[in-house]
Amino acid sequence: MSLGTPAIGKGLLLKADTIANTFRDEIQKSLATRQKAPKLVGILSTSQSPSRYYAEFTRKQCEELGVNFVLKETGAALNKDRVADDKLAEGEGVEEAIIEANEDDSVDGIMVYYPIFGVQQDQYLQQVVSPLKDVEGLHFKFHYNLYHNIRFIEPKGLVSPVTPKDIPSQPADDTPPPGTVKSILPCTPLAIVKCLEHVGVYNKILPYGDRAYGKTITVINRSEVVGRPLAALLANDGARVFSVDIDSIQEYTKRPRVSTDSSSTRYHPRHIVHPSSLSLQECLALSDVVISAVPNAEYKVKTEWLKDGCVAVNVAAEKNFEKDVREKASLYLPAVGRVTIMMLLRNLLRLQQCRELL
Amino acid sequence: MSLGTPAIGKGLLLKADTIANTFRDEIQKSLATRQKAPKLVGILSTSQSPSRYYAEFTRKQCEELGVNFVLKETGAALNKDRVADDKLAEGEGVEEAIIEANEDDSVDGIMVYYPIFGVQQDQYLQQVVSPLKDVEGLHFKFHYNLYHNIRFIEPKGLVSPVTPKDIPSQPADDTPPPGTVKSILPCTPLAIVKCLEHVGVYNKILPYGDRAYGKTITVINRSEVVGRPLAALLANDGARVFSVDIDSIQEYTKRPRVSTDSSSTRYHPRHIVHPSSLSLQECLALSDVVISAVPNAEYKVKTEWLKDGCVAVNVAAEKNFEKDVREKASLYLPAVGRVTIMMLLRNLLRLQQCRELL
Repeated sequence: MSLGTPAIGKGLLLKADTIANTFRDEIQKSLATRQKAPKLVGILSTSQSPSRYYAEFTRKQCEELGVNFVLKETGAALNKDRVADDKLAEGEGVEEAIIEANEDDSVDGIMVYYPIFGVQQDQYLQQVVSPLKDVEGLHFKFHYNLYHNIRFIEPKGLVSPVTPKDIPSQPADDTPPPGTVKSILPCTPLAIVKCLEHVGVYNKILPYGDRAYGKTITVINRSEVVGRPLAALLANDGARVFSVDIDSIQEYTKRPRVSTDSSSTRYHPRHIVHPSSLSLQECLALSDVVISAVPNAEYKVKTEWLKDGCVAVNVAAEKNFEKDVREKASLYLPAVGRVTIMMLLRNLLRLQQCRELL
Repeated sequence: MSLGTPAIGKGLLLKADTIANTFRDEIQKSLATRQKAPKLVGILSTSQSPSRYYAEFTRKQCEELGVNFVLKETGAALNKDRVADDKLAEGEGVEEAIIEANEDDSVDGIMVYYPIFGVQQDQYLQQVVSPLKDVEGLHFKFHYNLYHNIRFIEPKGLVSPVTPKDIPSQPADDTPPPGTVKSILPCTPLAIVKCLEHVGVYNKILPYGDRAYGKTITVINRSEVVGRPLAALLANDGARVFSVDIDSIQEYTKRPRVSTDSSSTRYHPRHIVHPSSLSLQECLALSDVVISAVPNAEYKVKTEWLKDGCVAVNVAAEKNFEKDVREKASLYLPAVGRVTIMMLLRNLLRLQQCRELL
């Protein structure tokens, strides 16, 4: 067992590298079949060191795999080389850089290092990125597909103004039906799903599209970038999900609360959201998996509230779990960033193919 | 002078009704030429009384003018008729109601009563509304046009996935060039511009597209719904704008900071944003117009900081100016809601025509 460092009576500590490496191999194989290495443009427009660090990390991953990474610096990202009275503003030029990359045919994917202006204006910027190059999966089109459990789309749907009306029937496996490709999923939620697949939370014996059935999962955070899409993804895959935010708890599920006679309505085609009357402590007591993504170093999930043997996943930059989390958790994943970047590169390959099909 | 209640040495108090009525007449005339009264669907999904009040206000305005208004209630808006253990959730069913109205050919406009889930998820919902029916002007497409000073669009541009690339040359007046219609502007920022036109802040002697030239304006609030689009609109119309948010002050202007020789670069085709080193007090001392839209009853603009003779506009539901604001302001507009609703109805008529042209 090379998964981590087990100790008797203690949960496993699972580093994301192991999981990331399986995708790295897949990406390497796929790259070997391409005539042209895909080109990813990273846009760094702030002076924030975590963003700079993430940009350099992206470059390293790309270079190791043979992806052509170009870092476009603008605004305050350029200040290190400028004198005091010639400093540029945080975010200056970022929208123009996105538009330029959208219009540049040699660019296959665009990654913007957030946060820049704050959630609302950043959400505006996410719509400026062409869906054809949106490797982060943050465009409204992809969120809409995710929330509506629309898994496969026609490549031309990426540039179509029409929002898909019908939820396609769930295929028996994850092979796209003829003429379709998989929709792009936002990187971080997707990385978490892949981690849960890896550790066996998803049950491969169950039919595709319902493999998290039977699992109860608490997701702490309900932002549009991580928490809400993640809760929706997991519920669309069959899990019962508690979505916990600072001021409310909701339950996401495909299963109707009231059982009906008709087998055709055994479950909804996509998750339904209900307010929950449970407390966080009660949710955690029920949860096989606890995922926390609270951007606050002070926030900690109480170990004593965890269900014995649960899987704990920390998504925040700072640790949201207490040091003794493995006293209760059977598995603890302290970070998913290395898997996230692999999902981003997978999206890049998918979008490169998509554009070739158009 | 019927504008308000002047008193010697005191600024005028200007109620929005006067301004709203000029648009009411214009709308009435336009409605008289239509074969079919436009149909506006209002979607109310919460139990919040300000939203209920606004919905009833919309209904009253529509009925008086002969617009067909249908209130679609969903989620917690229906709770008043339900027993305690059968209550619906805040926002339940709102996305489905939007999609239904998008697909209903008899519907010309959709208005959703916010706030519902919070800024991020509400911003997602704003993208679900078809741009062809978005009377509030909150779709990304309209914000993009506004920020980029793209004033006229082809009707088919409303359903085109392609983001316009070029900023068209400014026409000599506001008559749309052949084959184009005016882009939809968000209601509240547009209402404020109309108020400023009415009170003479916009100078009609100046060329169209630059009529706020020479005016310095402070806008307090930088949300994507009010403050940022408003600051951009005013700067695109020639004003020097200070955009004030809780943690920064920015300057929006079309004028280059460094003067150049070439007359062709006399000003940028759209506003440029720079960080400002001025304090709020310094901005106010320079400002001919002060617009405040802070959603906090505690927030007050200090009267003593205002420039003598300025125009003060309160956009927030609660009053952001002190009681003695008219000791310094030459004109004080305590609310713009009645003008906002007229802008919404104007957008409705425009979109009805647009759909006929498609």
